[in-house]
Amino acid sequence: MNAEQVTGSQNFPPTIRVGVLGFGGLGQAAARLLAPKREMILVAVADQKGYVSRSEGLNIKDCIATYQSQGSVGYLEPHGTLSSNSIQKLIAAAEGVDGYFLALPNLPNNFIASVAQQFIASGWRGVLVDAIKRTSAVEQLLAMKDELCAAGITYMTGCGATPGLLTAAAALAAQSYAEIHQVEITFGVGIANWEAYRATIREDIAHMPGYNTEIARAMTDAEVEALLDQTNGILTLENMEHADDIMLELVGIVERDSVTVGGVVDTRNPKKPKSTNVKVTGRTFEGKISTHTFTLGDETSMAANVCGPAFGYLKAAKQLHNRGIYGLFTAAEIMPQFVK
Amino acid sequence: MNAEQVTGSQNFPPTIRVGVLGFGGLGQAAARLLAPKREMILVAVADQKGYVSRSEGLNIKDCIATYQSQGSVGYLEPHGTLSSNSIQKLIAAAEGVDGYFLALPNLPNNFIASVAQQFIASGWRGVLVDAIKRTSAVEQLLAMKDELCAAGITYMTGCGATPGLLTAAAALAAQSYAEIHQVEITFGVGIANWEAYRATIREDIAHMPGYNTEIARAMTDAEVEALLDQTNGILTLENMEHADDIMLELVGIVERDSVTVGGVVDTRNPKKPKSTNVKVTGRTFEGKISTHTFTLGDETSMAANVCGPAFGYLKAAKQLHNRGIYGLFTAAEIMPQFVK
Repeated sequence: MNAEQVTGSQNFPPTIRVGVLGFGGLGQAAARLLAPKREMILVAVADQKGYVSRSEGLNIKDCIATYQSQGSVGYLEPHGTLSSNSIQKLIAAAEGVDGYFLALPNLPNNFIASVAQQFIASGWRGVLVDAIKRTSAVEQLLAMKDELCAAGITYMTGCGATPGLLTAAAALAAQSYAEIHQVEITFGVGIANWEAYRATIREDIAHMPGYNTEIARAMTDAEVEALLDQTNGILTLENMEHADDIMLELVGIVERDSVTVGGVVDTRNPKKPKSTNVKVTGRTFEGKISTHTFTLGDETSMAANVCGPAFGYLKAAKQLHNRGIYGLFTAAEIMPQFVK
Repeated sequence: MNAEQVTGSQNFPPTIRVGVLGFGGLGQAAARLLAPKREMILVAVADQKGYVSRSEGLNIKDCIATYQSQGSVGYLEPHGTLSSNSIQKLIAAAEGVDGYFLALPNLPNNFIASVAQQFIASGWRGVLVDAIKRTSAVEQLLAMKDELCAAGITYMTGCGATPGLLTAAAALAAQSYAEIHQVEITFGVGIANWEAYRATIREDIAHMPGYNTEIARAMTDAEVEALLDQTNGILTLENMEHADDIMLELVGIVERDSVTVGGVVDTRNPKKPKSTNVKVTGRTFEGKISTHTFTLGDETSMAANVCGPAFGYLKAAKQLHNRGIYGLFTAAEIMPQFVK
């Protein structure tokens, strides 16, 4: 217990001690987002080649600089450690971590479920949050619900932008209706260059006709670039397998077939190619058909819309965990809490 | 316990047994909204002059017809009872009610708090939901938090449209931002004639310059009509005292001064005079200023946007109550659950 926790009053709740798994574009954005927070501190990071933890908090600039110059936080002096088994080692080594954000690409498609299994096997108890995308990946986690519960883990799945923020907005919008006919999610993402989000872009390519997660994962950087050259850097995605559908079905709002997700990713321009929004169409108890719309501001980045909600759900899940409520929850059933 | 509960499986959770206090425009809409639900049944109703309860469920058409023809559900045969103290009598008489929706006008401004006190004094345990509007009214309930907790009551306040659905949307939208600068709620309400919502319209008038809740409450119907004649049936409301502000402040999103609520009510046309929306402006962790917008479909009525969320929050609060979580909560901190 650190000094802040000992002196904590109701006005200053104990700091939540957070780890981030994965330190590519998303993991680094998560760390930068955490830097100014008073209610959360970053104490643990793992990437593919190493890990670092420090119970008093990590220097986020140093973590990012080391990763960018040397390829792993494992090179960070004096606490970094290189390891080919970095996640398992970090879980065992890091002390007093309340929750982890899994900023990991889910390649292969069972990777995040396998990480959850490592947490269960380790005996660690706390909060896990992912920003997973595919329906089939959420189904793997659903099958682990009882195990997570028995392990004392409160796991929040699908807690990024979509699924996540937009799914929650759909769940909220549904409240005005007796019956939901359709949920339509459309996103626009603009990034200055694809190399900043190599894994995320591969996950997007995997949704395109003729591709899957195995093919996309095996593509070299040159092959990704060749593909993007053909489309002038634009990826157009339709009828994506996105877990918004199963999450809304699980809470009884709509059958998964009535949920569609599609969008456009511009990998060469940080300006969004279109506004991101979710439209919820239904029938009110009076028999009127109408549509509620939730639209994200165009200036907000994918990183802000994924990492902000992820930590908001982590904070909410910590409150559940404190009350002894464990198991698997989604963004559609819990209200995220604002992290100051 | 009814047959449905005895035979209930995980696929068919026990029916939630609901009471509605107040049976004017809002209370009747709440009853009509409940009629086709499988997960909730209406078992108790009170109005100013009487009450009725039936543990197997009330016939909603009969309740509304009796109220409209005779002025009180107390006339309903064979279970209705006339009483000048209908709420207190109903609380004592109705058996097995899981939760009540307080579809009551808050006139005077401490009326709903006084009803909460009646529940506490009665020894009843369960869920209470209101669609209260004023900041000062929520403050009265906040002061009762410990009492509600000790009484075994899970009370959800501010769970209509605004505050309620739009406040929750603002809380969700805030997740993309490091800092919130402004929350701006604008509503349009259209009703065919003001007599269908006499109490609600008086509450709106109370927000106009030169009026307050006491003045508005004391107005005769003729005086209300004379006022509406002056404005061609339109009420324009600005900088309203609305609890969205304190609710967002309580969850740490923004100080109350940065939340504004205003709108236009057309009392002579069911078409909305403007679209209802909430705009949340903030700064992302990357320093970008942007605005998320949540807009309600124009075809959705005030009744749908108030009563739908109210029962969604009642369902969510029932889950908290089942876990032994009591006290006072707002629409900004709990995700409502869809009621089938």
